Amino acid sequence: MASVDVPVALLGYGTVGAAVHRLLVDSGDDIERATGHRLRITKALVREPGRERGFAPEPGVLTSDFEEVRRSDAAVVAEVMGGLEPAGEYVLELLRGGRHVVTANKQLVARRGAELFEAASAAGVQLRFEASVCGAIPVVKVLREALVVSNVHRVLGIVNGTTNFVLGAMAEGRSYGEALAEAQRLGYAEADPTDDVSGADSAAKMAILATVAFGSRVTPDDVAVAGIEHVTTDQVAAARALEMAVKLVGAATLVDGRFDVRVGPALVDGHHPLATVDGAFNAVMLQGDAIREITLEGPGAGGDETASAVVADMVSVVGTTGTGFLQNDACWRTLERLPAGELRSPFYLHAEVDDRPGVLARVAGVLAEHGVSVARLVQQQTDTGATLHVVTHEAPAGEVDAALGELADLPETRSRPAALRVISDRGVAGLGWA
Amino acid sequence: MASVDVPVALLGYGTVGAAVHRLLVDSGDDIERATGHRLRITKALVREPGRERGFAPEPGVLTSDFEEVRRSDAAVVAEVMGGLEPAGEYVLELLRGGRHVVTANKQLVARRGAELFEAASAAGVQLRFEASVCGAIPVVKVLREALVVSNVHRVLGIVNGTTNFVLGAMAEGRSYGEALAEAQRLGYAEADPTDDVSGADSAAKMAILATVAFGSRVTPDDVAVAGIEHVTTDQVAAARALEMAVKLVGAATLVDGRFDVRVGPALVDGHHPLATVDGAFNAVMLQGDAIREITLEGPGAGGDETASAVVADMVSVVGTTGTGFLQNDACWRTLERLPAGELRSPFYLHAEVDDRPGVLARVAGVLAEHGVSVARLVQQQTDTGATLHVVTHEAPAGEVDAALGELADLPETRSRPAALRVISDRGVAGLGWA
Repeated sequence: MASVDVPVALLGYGTVGAAVHRLLVDSGDDIERATGHRLRITKALVREPGRERGFAPEPGVLTSDFEEVRRSDAAVVAEVMGGLEPAGEYVLELLRGGRHVVTANKQLVARRGAELFEAASAAGVQLRFEASVCGAIPVVKVLREALVVSNVHRVLGIVNGTTNFVLGAMAEGRSYGEALAEAQRLGYAEADPTDDVSGADSAAKMAILATVAFGSRVTPDDVAVAGIEHVTTDQVAAARALEMAVKLVGAATLVDGRFDVRVGPALVDGHHPLATVDGAFNAVMLQGDAIREITLEGPGAGGDETASAVVADMVSVVGTTGTGFLQNDACWRTLERLPAGELRSPFYLHAEVDDRPGVLARVAGVLAEHGVSVARLVQQQTDTGATLHVVTHEAPAGEVDAALGELADLPETRSRPAALRVISDRGVAGLGWA
Repeated sequence: MASVDVPVALLGYGTVGAAVHRLLVDSGDDIERATGHRLRITKALVREPGRERGFAPEPGVLTSDFEEVRRSDAAVVAEVMGGLEPAGEYVLELLRGGRHVVTANKQLVARRGAELFEAASAAGVQLRFEASVCGAIPVVKVLREALVVSNVHRVLGIVNGTTNFVLGAMAEGRSYGEALAEAQRLGYAEADPTDDVSGADSAAKMAILATVAFGSRVTPDDVAVAGIEHVTTDQVAAARALEMAVKLVGAATLVDGRFDVRVGPALVDGHHPLATVDGAFNAVMLQGDAIREITLEGPGAGGDETASAVVADMVSVVGTTGTGFLQNDACWRTLERLPAGELRSPFYLHAEVDDRPGVLARVAGVLAEHGVSVARLVQQQTDTGATLHVVTHEAPAGEVDAALGELADLPETRSRPAALRVISDRGVAGLGWA
């Protein structure tokens, strides 16, 4: 087949944009083997076209005028500028104008997906978004193209490298503040780390993954979010004693045709594939009927890693144009959200109580009243009282919350008890104290 | 788009074949959403069409006559019968006759790939083989479609569930014989386990993965293979003391434009993603330029799992027909094999020696003569002498072999010392004795 050049444009030419350009140049032969085409960047939108750049495009490519991109001959446009606006309006206009778009923008896909995919469908073009979730890990492609018939009913993910690094440093003995400062020093966390540590970044990614996995629109507003700001060194130490690790886990679950998507710190059993995800890496476990479970692990961020996902999407666009294959919106149904309290899970409860007779019985009594069954309970003496570590069997989150509220009101309780989900393949029955 | 039925045929209707049929029926809507088509089984080749089956096809579908399949209207044929012949001739004839073929047959792809892909190319049809490697794990799709521009230069895999189960049971204290018997009792190992425990099964899979990753034909004859038959409980215990695990690891490496593919027992560092692959699961780590490393883990075998990969390939065939996208042979160059002794790796050496002065110095001297540098050395007293556990820095395999040969000839050496590769992300410097 004779090679035909495909003109492409970039919105943004920062770290990711420059890496996309370099990959397209360096890997032109690979792409031509895969698709029969060479991708050539003809326009790139930037704020300051005159600024010096590491991997500089040819003269005339850089422009600060979106109109030039809109009027260019680009068949495929990669949006790597970030932010909701003006990126959103640009992408919308380009789709309406018949350009395929590839985006690395998680907030845009998570918040305005419905509108964007509708525009793409109407114009008969593709909108791909692999790079918006988990960097180089091809989880969207695997979900959409490899697991077509697998009825994926659960997605578990460590989808934020910053928080995973911080929790890893805490597992090595540092406080939350020390760990965060170290992450900032090493470039894993931004000066304002709110988006990461609050769970907001994870929530956007889990919304996208849930949408693709379940075929029903899930937005960040549908995600129950807790961050890592209140994870204590005590909890991290207790997890370790249980042969578990505290991780910020995103979980999307389908329960009787309703979805539950949540992000929060959880205790992950040491034998679970997510437990050993180190440093700033990401991992996603997909559970489905025929496949049981497939876990993908890799770098979740980084310029080259994200660019590799952007280019892979461009290659897929060029390679499938003209077919009806897996185009655009993954949504084909509208599912309701499961009321937050109904999701069942094992939990780890942590309570500081007075060390005197009868306390244990009262705590156990409160849990029993709410139907929360105890799998393991360990009481540790402290300088001033006692700490109770409880691992429960599966229980509805709402009942666990209600029991926690009552425990907080007991006169013997010294501080509000905390509950963290437990993620375990083996079920809590197999857990032992180290 | 109006849905058009696509007739498909099966070669074989055993566990996998029946599961493919059931998935096509149960997931017809999913497939239509993905491709715009419904896949309908019109012929299935079996030995005994009259035999009763769990998921029975419609009357007239089953046949024992290949001519009926060849003359059928099937656009896509799934080969799930296994064996080199007659499967190979059937697939070749079908490809020449213009049928797309999807196969789960690793020996066929590994041994006759060149011929089959040539026939597919000549006829302008697709030959896909996701199910031939690692069951439900979509590693071929990820390598070919997501990592197009990643220059994957290393593939590490646990690609045989039987041996992983046996080694896991040995890590829990059982002997090789006990562990193998348990695997047979639980259905993880066949009555004749030779193909698995000898490494032959892994070698075929690694040949396929290396071919796809490096774009150059690698056959099982190009793979250096050692099985797990000679792994001892001593080695497993020593690995544990090093916070490592003995695994049967397949490793395909590109070194200066030459390839090295080998399968053998290795010590995997506890922090490495492959170390925690439990039971009969498989995992593959792909290392490349832009992606750093991506690991995929999941069930490597099973009827439903393999069928899910077969159906995913069928969906991809139907979804990309008419495009020039990623068709057929992954080979585009011819690389030479690296001489076996040249591959560099850290090693673990195990030697039983006399417990008398000067032994350690002689052992260290032999290693030093071969340029093998010691990272850690621990001497343990035994009832009859001493055991040396040595972890080396990276050294050429050939030098390590030569040193072992000399060590075996020392008068102080009681049995032929053994060397196992060490797989570690962190480099051996970070390893400590527990």
